[in-house]
Amino acid sequence: MITDLPDIQQDKPSITIPIGQVGVENVELPFKLESKYGGFHQLIANVSMGTNLDKDTKGISMSRLIRTLKPYLDLPLKHKLIKLILEDIRENVGGSSSFMKFEFRFPIIKKSIKSDNEFPLYYKCRFEGQLYPNINIHSVFDFYQGVIVQYASYCPCSNELCNHLQTQGSNGFPHNQRSFANILVESRKSHYIWLEDLIEAAELAVINLPYPIIKREDEQEIARVAAQNPMFVEDAMRNISVAINDIKGVRDWIIKCSHQESIHTSEAIAINWKGIKDGFDGRRFI
Amino acid sequence: MITDLPDIQQDKPSITIPIGQVGVENVELPFKLESKYGGFHQLIANVSMGTNLDKDTKGISMSRLIRTLKPYLDLPLKHKLIKLILEDIRENVGGSSSFMKFEFRFPIIKKSIKSDNEFPLYYKCRFEGQLYPNINIHSVFDFYQGVIVQYASYCPCSNELCNHLQTQGSNGFPHNQRSFANILVESRKSHYIWLEDLIEAAELAVINLPYPIIKREDEQEIARVAAQNPMFVEDAMRNISVAINDIKGVRDWIIKCSHQESIHTSEAIAINWKGIKDGFDGRRFI
Amino acid sequence: MITDLPDIQQDKPSITIPIGQVGVENVELPFKLESKYGGFHQLIANVSMGTNLDKDTKGISMSRLIRTLKPYLDLPLKHKLIKLILEDIRENVGGSSSFMKFEFRFPIIKKSIKSDNEFPLYYKCRFEGQLYPNINIHSVFDFYQGVIVQYASYCPCSNELCNHLQTQGSNGFPHNQRSFANILVESRKSHYIWLEDLIEAAELAVINLPYPIIKREDEQEIARVAAQNPMFVEDAMRNISVAINDIKGVRDWIIKCSHQESIHTSEAIAINWKGIKDGFDGRRFI
Amino acid sequence: MITDLPDIQQDKPSITIPIGQVGVENVELPFKLESKYGGFHQLIANVSMGTNLDKDTKGISMSRLIRTLKPYLDLPLKHKLIKLILEDIRENVGGSSSFMKFEFRFPIIKKSIKSDNEFPLYYKCRFEGQLYPNINIHSVFDFYQGVIVQYASYCPCSNELCNHLQTQGSNGFPHNQRSFANILVESRKSHYIWLEDLIEAAELAVINLPYPIIKREDEQEIARVAAQNPMFVEDAMRNISVAINDIKGVRDWIIKCSHQESIHTSEAIAINWKGIKDGFDGRRFI
Repeated sequence: MITDLPDIQQDKPSITIPIGQVGVENVELPFKLESKYGGFHQLIANVSMGTNLDKDTKGISMSRLIRTLKPYLDLPLKHKLIKLILEDIRENVGGSSSFMKFEFRFPIIKKSIKSDNEFPLYYKCRFEGQLYPNINIHSVFDFYQGVIVQYASYCPCSNELCNHLQTQGSNGFPHNQRSFANILVESRKSHYIWLEDLIEAAELAVINLPYPIIKREDEQEIARVAAQNPMFVEDAMRNISVAINDIKGVRDWIIKCSHQESIHTSEAIAINWKGIKDGFDGRRFI
Repeated sequence: MITDLPDIQQDKPSITIPIGQVGVENVELPFKLESKYGGFHQLIANVSMGTNLDKDTKGISMSRLIRTLKPYLDLPLKHKLIKLILEDIRENVGGSSSFMKFEFRFPIIKKSIKSDNEFPLYYKCRFEGQLYPNINIHSVFDFYQGVIVQYASYCPCSNELCNHLQTQGSNGFPHNQRSFANILVESRKSHYIWLEDLIEAAELAVINLPYPIIKREDEQEIARVAAQNPMFVEDAMRNISVAINDIKGVRDWIIKCSHQESIHTSEAIAINWKGIKDGFDGRRFI
Repeated sequence: MITDLPDIQQDKPSITIPIGQVGVENVELPFKLESKYGGFHQLIANVSMGTNLDKDTKGISMSRLIRTLKPYLDLPLKHKLIKLILEDIRENVGGSSSFMKFEFRFPIIKKSIKSDNEFPLYYKCRFEGQLYPNINIHSVFDFYQGVIVQYASYCPCSNELCNHLQTQGSNGFPHNQRSFANILVESRKSHYIWLEDLIEAAELAVINLPYPIIKREDEQEIARVAAQNPMFVEDAMRNISVAINDIKGVRDWIIKCSHQESIHTSEAIAINWKGIKDGFDGRRFI
Repeated sequence: MITDLPDIQQDKPSITIPIGQVGVENVELPFKLESKYGGFHQLIANVSMGTNLDKDTKGISMSRLIRTLKPYLDLPLKHKLIKLILEDIRENVGGSSSFMKFEFRFPIIKKSIKSDNEFPLYYKCRFEGQLYPNINIHSVFDFYQGVIVQYASYCPCSNELCNHLQTQGSNGFPHNQRSFANILVESRKSHYIWLEDLIEAAELAVINLPYPIIKREDEQEIARVAAQNPMFVEDAMRNISVAINDIKGVRDWIIKCSHQESIHTSEAIAINWKGIKDGFDGRRFI
């Protein structure tokens, strides 16, 4: 009979100190995500989750984490479902706090800039929830949402130097390159921000975007728009910072922009954060 | 003449907000590192560095970061040299704060557990320095050191279940696997901790280690020691937490252990931190 | 009007040599895959595709590759659909040959070894098709299928050394570790092999598998089975080689096994291939 | 005494089939490499090596691979040393053939395009040797050398579309991006090609290069040169193919170019190979 088997996790540990987070990482599973524009996507998530561990317990049951999660896989994922799962984990696995992260690729149908073409573009996104007690409160629930947005950055300095070349009867091409904005926001209590809204806010801020299908008329329009909007990594960061800060429901944010320079082997980067008390801080290693 | 060329970084930005960190990432360079046991290693670092940016400046000169760094490449790298470089960066590039990270692979000659064999083992390490003004103080210098240590973790639960099998006249092998401890410490002011000391403290705490050369006599001894020291990820974390906390010169620490389970496709993880005010916090996304 | 725009791809190149393969890589898209056990999975593929380029054409239209592919996204993917797409690409983009690769994660519901638990496990898989003319034949179509299977390898040598320890009144744990078999097969003409069959053949051959949900009764059974089946990387390779070679519909195969040693920082590997004329050859850099 | 310990590798395997390659991967070690311009670099290699395995032997001694390699670590690495090591491995470990791969980062001092600045740039390189018997010959030795060269690619189509914009009184920026050429050559018997020569040949062919230090005068010159040399991935491939094919001592070659498009999330790629009998073939999965 099963209950005869030894259960060593229940033992007292030889070193009695608590551990901040214990759990599993890299669990792959199917899940459903609602689209802002109607309907649901069937997606694949890479999940980590766990609890804290008090000083007197040797270990948690890792398999109970997975079994607790299982019944929720058919329900559309949102902040409220994550809160439910976290409460359930705390109850089943033990611990006074619990945490959970979903990382996944999320598709948006992307129209070409001019021609009449559409094709999905996948964005790396994440949800992260934390449930923990605070002074006098049994359950504080913090919810984080992240997106990575690719854009093209055209160098303003190189642009000026090309203009200068033209005054000398010569000609130049300003360098540009693939660039990424990695955005993480903390949502205000009981607020869900559509991933589509986060992505669109960032894309509006950086202007020069990648497209799945580019015909010649599109390529020309992309080049025309680019010439109007050269941006240093600092410019891109300022634009995105303001755009994200202005989204209703965003309580705190941290952003990393990385320009994969075509004329360097290194990247130009900028990291910025809102700067609220006990909030994100780029010096503390995002 | 050069000074005729436009310098658009000096312009005022259209959005006047400051940026926490601006710089470069993924600069590869040669450097020298002193060994605790005498002599110097010639190594290759992957470097990021930069400054903050005040609200009224459009951008920094990225190339000035590299040019500032260059004269220091022949000097042995330590916390004091990093502080000097950071002061120089702040002076040459501008900004009230500066930061710098070195990531590299560091060799230690590893003796086999029993046989008379030696071979180098490389450890992923990092140094990180931050220089910034604080109330009334022009220059606070924070210094961080990191190491990643591989070990083998043998499951105590599986071990107990194998013992139970033997009572039934059967036999079992407890599962074990490659495991990693990712350790980051903040050093006390003007303190340098030998990387060898960080690594050895962690290795003593986890006991079951990888070796470059393993003859049969070694393999038997490894198996013998393993049977005395099964560890959950929670056990490994507790052992390492105490070991790192006890190192003189460590002001704060955060540790992530990851066990790459042989019987799962997911990892068992634990994250722990000292918990001092304004210190590391695993819930804030290391 | 669009046709006014210059189309430089039609120019003659300055260097008139042919190119073996030209195309795009890392296109993400949704697709449907039939399950052997009924029904269809909605999955995400990472796709590369292209054509050869004759010596007198400057370049291909990359966007035409994507536009050609688009109408096929709603149809269930199989070898015959890939052949259709490749014929369409050759017609629309030009070239006498075309190629296409789909890489994706494919779920199989995995039952626990003893307890009554089920959870999906995702496998990295790939399809690859090549269409090209051969002597007197307009269209040879080669089709390749790949899967990566994780398993646990328990060291037979360590096992023997532990048995020897017991004869001396001592005790040891044989080391084991996460291991992977990367399998690529060429299918016989007009043959489709279920990915489930490839995966199951490999899993039967290596015996010790990972499971999503492992309760104590499962963990004990896993340990019991492990003790009956220790395997070197060479043993695992021989078992898998025979198992894959025996699958009906497999014309050629190449396999790489990698054991992520818990007592080493390096991996033990084996690479094997069938050895038919003009077939796979591990010495030619898979 | 050691010889009492069981040695199970000597057993006969239950399945008597040979294995093409058995060995270790991901061994890190220090080594010396001669520079074409005088002196030696102290570098770090990631090494794989092994032998074939005949049908009647259960396994090889992995630790003997490392111990065989060890005495050679102080000698400058070249094709002849690799051949010596391979002969030694074949003798010590057994097997009729042996193989070995060194992957490492190799520095070249890079001068800025105009200003008087110098800084090292690291290139990913590899050496690969294979020793095997052929009809009537005990030892054929094949030697391969690889380099990865980064460059900037400026799109000729986008350029033409920008010129067209100007005829309409508007303005555009042609897109460009970080690009890579991954080059692998087989050297003629007893021929060593300086890595510097391979890299310089490729860099001359693609023209637009990254630089560690770029002042404004450099950035302008880079833009000026770029405007003279737009290249599709097909153009870059043709230029490099001819350049590498012309290097004395190159017997066979295969090249992959990848342009990390700034206006796409996918890469434009080209793969080309010389096409000699039994030589490299891109359709056989490099």
